Amino acid sequence: MALRIGVVGFGTVGQSVARRLLDTPDPRVRLLRVCGRANGRERPAWLPRSVGWTTDFDALLAPDIDVVVELVGGIQPARSWLHRALIAGKSVVTANKQLVAEHGQELLALAARQQRTFRFEGAVAGGVPVVRAVEDGLAGDRLLGITGILNGTCNYILSRIERAGIPFDEALREAQELGYAEADPTADVDGFDARAKLAILCAIAFGVRVRTSDIECGSIASVTPDDFLRAGRHGCTIRQIASAERTEDGVVACVKPTLVPLDGPFARASGAQNVVAVRGELGGETVFTGQGAGGNPTAVAVLSDLFAVARRELSSVPAPAAAGAARKRGLALVPKYA
Amino acid sequence: MALRIGVVGFGTVGQSVARRLLDTPDPRVRLLRVCGRANGRERPAWLPRSVGWTTDFDALLAPDIDVVVELVGGIQPARSWLHRALIAGKSVVTANKQLVAEHGQELLALAARQQRTFRFEGAVAGGVPVVRAVEDGLAGDRLLGITGILNGTCNYILSRIERAGIPFDEALREAQELGYAEADPTADVDGFDARAKLAILCAIAFGVRVRTSDIECGSIASVTPDDFLRAGRHGCTIRQIASAERTEDGVVACVKPTLVPLDGPFARASGAQNVVAVRGELGGETVFTGQGAGGNPTAVAVLSDLFAVARRELSSVPAPAAAGAARKRGLALVPKYA
Repeated sequence: MALRIGVVGFGTVGQSVARRLLDTPDPRVRLLRVCGRANGRERPAWLPRSVGWTTDFDALLAPDIDVVVELVGGIQPARSWLHRALIAGKSVVTANKQLVAEHGQELLALAARQQRTFRFEGAVAGGVPVVRAVEDGLAGDRLLGITGILNGTCNYILSRIERAGIPFDEALREAQELGYAEADPTADVDGFDARAKLAILCAIAFGVRVRTSDIECGSIASVTPDDFLRAGRHGCTIRQIASAERTEDGVVACVKPTLVPLDGPFARASGAQNVVAVRGELGGETVFTGQGAGGNPTAVAVLSDLFAVARRELSSVPAPAAAGAARKRGLALVPKYA
Repeated sequence: MALRIGVVGFGTVGQSVARRLLDTPDPRVRLLRVCGRANGRERPAWLPRSVGWTTDFDALLAPDIDVVVELVGGIQPARSWLHRALIAGKSVVTANKQLVAEHGQELLALAARQQRTFRFEGAVAGGVPVVRAVEDGLAGDRLLGITGILNGTCNYILSRIERAGIPFDEALREAQELGYAEADPTADVDGFDARAKLAILCAIAFGVRVRTSDIECGSIASVTPDDFLRAGRHGCTIRQIASAERTEDGVVACVKPTLVPLDGPFARASGAQNVVAVRGELGGETVFTGQGAGGNPTAVAVLSDLFAVARRELSSVPAPAAAGAARKRGLALVPKYA
């Protein structure tokens, strides 16, 4: 039995997810239907006839879909769609950081009531599995702080100001020409993108809800080549750092351009690389680094979430291991966790 | 309802786990009984009377125990104990790398047949949640390679040879005096410790079983101060590196002293720090760094496993979120994944 999957949103990430679902030999996931946007894209030629194409989201609420994957982004209509999907008994996987930051709690609660799964690994740090590493792998610790580079666009712009000695405006224009920054760069440059991801991390790491509007944001637009020279004299460089600390009565969080030591993990992050350092009472500092954006890394997160849904919702009990049959050249397949 | 926990093994890790279980406010886990070794330790005074003390493992097979936590290490008697625990209907959490490397497959299969859980996050890289990050968080990728520093003792010895310019024997003696190396240092120095962890990572990342005896090991005992001088001339240093690559017909894996670039993540690992870099077809390189040994970091891994067992086996369905009641100073509790 396979999870029958409906995908809404067919941009870079949506297409990567579809290709990966079509490629994977794993029998637990099957791409059944794609919903492209009404105003847009034609059905691409590479999509096999076995996959349905629609521009009507309601087609993903049909009884033959088990999981809805939302890759459109933005609060609306995604929020209404995912409500309706959960109420229709679907599980939901999303990479939508704004939606999870603002309404993750309500969607998690609804999913729990519906006994469905709601997952969002792709919403933070792309392919770096920081959501489950923190929520599950560090669940045994009491986490005290998070520090991270969560926005690759700012990384690119800052490293151009640093290395080429050009002003912010020129570095931004370059990033836009190369497709690393949007026409409206506000979300990246002013920290709103990173703060949505930080709010999600706060919920997971500290178990408290931090409203995005309560997270102070500083823009990188005022950073100059001279700032880098001064930073360098102190053995530092400048990065857009998102940080949150547990305090006695809650959490203090902010996103802003920050001095970081040249020999530390943050200074070395380049391009779309994300870095998340988590500090725990018992475990000390644990650092996760990897590709924080892009179609393929985010598709890894989405697929991993789908396999997690499969583990939870496909009720197959693994057969006893047939050790003899599985051996080949001294290697035998190891059963994955049931 | 709580998971009732029996711990066997009361060394550094066992004591950290017990303290953390007694400290945690989480109602899902309850330390019920500890099995110290027959030839050894008295019941410690800090253990409250509510926790039973025994030197007979069979006391952990009683019907009032739900999960057995094994922290003794070594193949026997741990293997028989955990077989008996699974057959008695317990779930099992262990940090025993040799046992999981050699017999993880058989124990996982038995756990699946018994519909119980078998987890071993603490067996690899201590507090760094690399088992679940790889197995669960990168499940959506096809992993191609693993490179890691999995043994902190070797790290310490190599960095002493490098910085103090002393020969291996002297650095080893220092490490032994400081308690970083065992009286018999073979397992660490000759790579057997790291290769057991690498075998576990291969099973998780590639889904293939690699016998530890098939993993080539090179000792760090032959590394000299001169080797570091030569390495430095090429912008490198020397670390004990465990690596595995997926090949057409299986996996090639080895553990040996290796040149690593000074500006990369491996050169910077110090003391008990572990580093695991995983390379995926879609996600590129993802790096995990943190405390790879010690009582407290390993206790984080064990506790995290226990919470995973609780999520799976305690059948409580979360109540609808009482948003109003949970709010405090603008913060509201976020429900964890059900």
